[in-house]
Amino acid sequence: MQAEIIAVGTEILLGQITNTNTTHIARGLAELGIDSYYQTVVGDNPKRLADAIEIAARRNDLVILSGGLGPTKDDLTKQTLAHYLNVPLVEDAAAMAVIDQYFERTGKTMTANNRIQALYPKGATPLTNHNGMAVGAFYQSPDSADFLLLPGPPREMTMMFDTEAKPKLQAAYGQQAQIYSRVLRFFGIGESRLVTDLQTLIDQQGNVTIAPYAKTNEVTLRISAQADTQEAATRALDDVETKIRAKVGDYFYGYGDDNSLAQVVINAMIAGKLSLTAAESLTAGEFQSTIGGVPGVSAIFPGGFVTYANAAKHQLVNVPQQTIDQDGVVSEATAIAMADGAREQLATDVAVSFTGVAGPDDLEGQPAGTVWIGLAYPGQATQAHQFNFAGDRQKVRQRSVMAGLDMIRRAMRADGRLPK
Amino acid sequence: MQAEIIAVGTEILLGQITNTNTTHIARGLAELGIDSYYQTVVGDNPKRLADAIEIAARRNDLVILSGGLGPTKDDLTKQTLAHYLNVPLVEDAAAMAVIDQYFERTGKTMTANNRIQALYPKGATPLTNHNGMAVGAFYQSPDSADFLLLPGPPREMTMMFDTEAKPKLQAAYGQQAQIYSRVLRFFGIGESRLVTDLQTLIDQQGNVTIAPYAKTNEVTLRISAQADTQEAATRALDDVETKIRAKVGDYFYGYGDDNSLAQVVINAMIAGKLSLTAAESLTAGEFQSTIGGVPGVSAIFPGGFVTYANAAKHQLVNVPQQTIDQDGVVSEATAIAMADGAREQLATDVAVSFTGVAGPDDLEGQPAGTVWIGLAYPGQATQAHQFNFAGDRQKVRQRSVMAGLDMIRRAMRADGRLPK
Repeated sequence: MQAEIIAVGTEILLGQITNTNTTHIARGLAELGIDSYYQTVVGDNPKRLADAIEIAARRNDLVILSGGLGPTKDDLTKQTLAHYLNVPLVEDAAAMAVIDQYFERTGKTMTANNRIQALYPKGATPLTNHNGMAVGAFYQSPDSADFLLLPGPPREMTMMFDTEAKPKLQAAYGQQAQIYSRVLRFFGIGESRLVTDLQTLIDQQGNVTIAPYAKTNEVTLRISAQADTQEAATRALDDVETKIRAKVGDYFYGYGDDNSLAQVVINAMIAGKLSLTAAESLTAGEFQSTIGGVPGVSAIFPGGFVTYANAAKHQLVNVPQQTIDQDGVVSEATAIAMADGAREQLATDVAVSFTGVAGPDDLEGQPAGTVWIGLAYPGQATQAHQFNFAGDRQKVRQRSVMAGLDMIRRAMRADGRLPK
Repeated sequence: MQAEIIAVGTEILLGQITNTNTTHIARGLAELGIDSYYQTVVGDNPKRLADAIEIAARRNDLVILSGGLGPTKDDLTKQTLAHYLNVPLVEDAAAMAVIDQYFERTGKTMTANNRIQALYPKGATPLTNHNGMAVGAFYQSPDSADFLLLPGPPREMTMMFDTEAKPKLQAAYGQQAQIYSRVLRFFGIGESRLVTDLQTLIDQQGNVTIAPYAKTNEVTLRISAQADTQEAATRALDDVETKIRAKVGDYFYGYGDDNSLAQVVINAMIAGKLSLTAAESLTAGEFQSTIGGVPGVSAIFPGGFVTYANAAKHQLVNVPQQTIDQDGVVSEATAIAMADGAREQLATDVAVSFTGVAGPDDLEGQPAGTVWIGLAYPGQATQAHQFNFAGDRQKVRQRSVMAGLDMIRRAMRADGRLPK
């Protein structure tokens, strides 16, 4: 079983965007045990796309096309494929209903080209687009390669591939010698340090492979086992996970590709009925916005403060002017006063505070990246820690948010609200 | 002049790494005015690599290979190319000297396979690797395509491509008629509607091409002109931009790949000395975090409020309990009271407020995506607008932030603080 991925889009050929869609699909194929020996990119040009389809169909059992399903006239992928297959395009009623509903709900005028998004090659199985309007398709052919049609926008493509396409590929091609994997997530340790700490395990890896990925401000490890049954895979993965966590378990916070430190911390706080607020200076609301992204957070989060100017720190969360004058605005004392003040104002159990230098310029003689994070937490004196983050303004702010979440996580581990 | 980029590496086929090398090379080719119609990825397999080289050489004038120049036994790119070209590999004395020096300096033992890194196809020009040991090569052939050999590690590849290869490509192929482009940014109009409104211009596009891209919550148009001089390109692009803005100028907010609505609005507010605060419910700080990302915002932004719970709306920004009881929390009256209350608290010129249903669940019988955004702005009565955003929780929140920025932008256009 061999598959080739063809990404369609002139913006990729011009280097305007990086082809992350192909990475995602490639990883999914590896998980399904489907071999992939080639990847291709071709522009929005029907002649060259037809050539690429021809070459790929000749050397593979399955050809996966992503991109070019949209409503504009340079979106020609399904038209070109239908021509190659010599079948007409037909309308998917369900997809058309979604398009109709969208225009009805928003009161916008539907233009004729929007209908194109509901078309797919006759004989294929249409695939629902949960994050957009363009329908996908899985076309199985007795006498040529099979084809999978996916949209180009990454949010649409990843959702459709994971939830609609993968189960159908698995059903169609039966169980290949399958690869089972598990993702472990770490915060507070860099990729190279993680790899160094796990070097012996990585060098000795046998049936279970260990692949580290550096993500934004965190690192994940994908451990994968090739096995005949889920049970055998689980045993092998459990064994390696135990060995990994014995070495770097302090930084491990959760599982899965779609997890985050915010989800882990907020869900534990919801379960433990711990309410939370924040006073943010350099992060300017990013901590609260991040926890606001977790469904159900309203049960424990009444709101909070963005105290960017010194006057706002005093006015909104009662930081004494004297503290700012004596200790400076980027200081342990100010961070502690902000956390205490925010907790008192909104009568929550927990409060986090952020004060620091986002950059690009220095502040009070302290370099960009200097950040104090305060934590007011039940049963302990309010504390603050200093961090020195590398990177630009946005990176310093993001790292601060992660570090604040991690301070809560460590406090919850210490008092047993989160497992060690 | 046509080029194809072939990235060599099984880790790309398995989705373990994203193919950013090809993005970098593609952008460089576009800058040189060299067309590129295909990109290919192939694994560390000599037979399939040979096939990929054969196909690429047939359809291009130049084939660029990156990856597989290292010392391990699956690094086979230059061996495969030399076999295709029917030339031997020869040693580059300068590269060999660097390798010798490294092992001398570090006291490590050089293994035989390290010598392989100094080899290149006879007849080519060797290219220095400033960040590693594997030498690159530029092979010009009178009777087949030309070849450029680059290493795989991104640090080595980008340095070699930018400093060694690009000047040689330019010298070899002369300056092609170069492509100059300009990016126009739009908010508040979807890609398909934009394309429909510009259909006549797009259908008639001649020397200047018009390429729309749907980004997160906005659309950009890249207009590109092939021209001999910057001046000629500027004239052609100006002409098309004027025609575009005559049709959809109301949604146009700025230029450039690295621009954003937040930057345009906040920089105009800094220039106009208009101070700003916000009271955020469903967006939970995302508006303030977004403007906090613009350097210099502290001149006009003292801070603000996250009023997630109803009690916080009352306590922090003085929304009368009666307003919430009578009109509901997701209502015009609540949005106006939040904006007025926030402005009064922090004595700013402008305040924006957000109250709505982020989802996934309904609230007060209103569906997810229902959002009221309030704007208190000098010289006019505080107003609020209702929006009905599609998409998941995160998308509703992001769209709300953009819509809030756009309300400020429109108010600043109306009173002349921003150009029409």
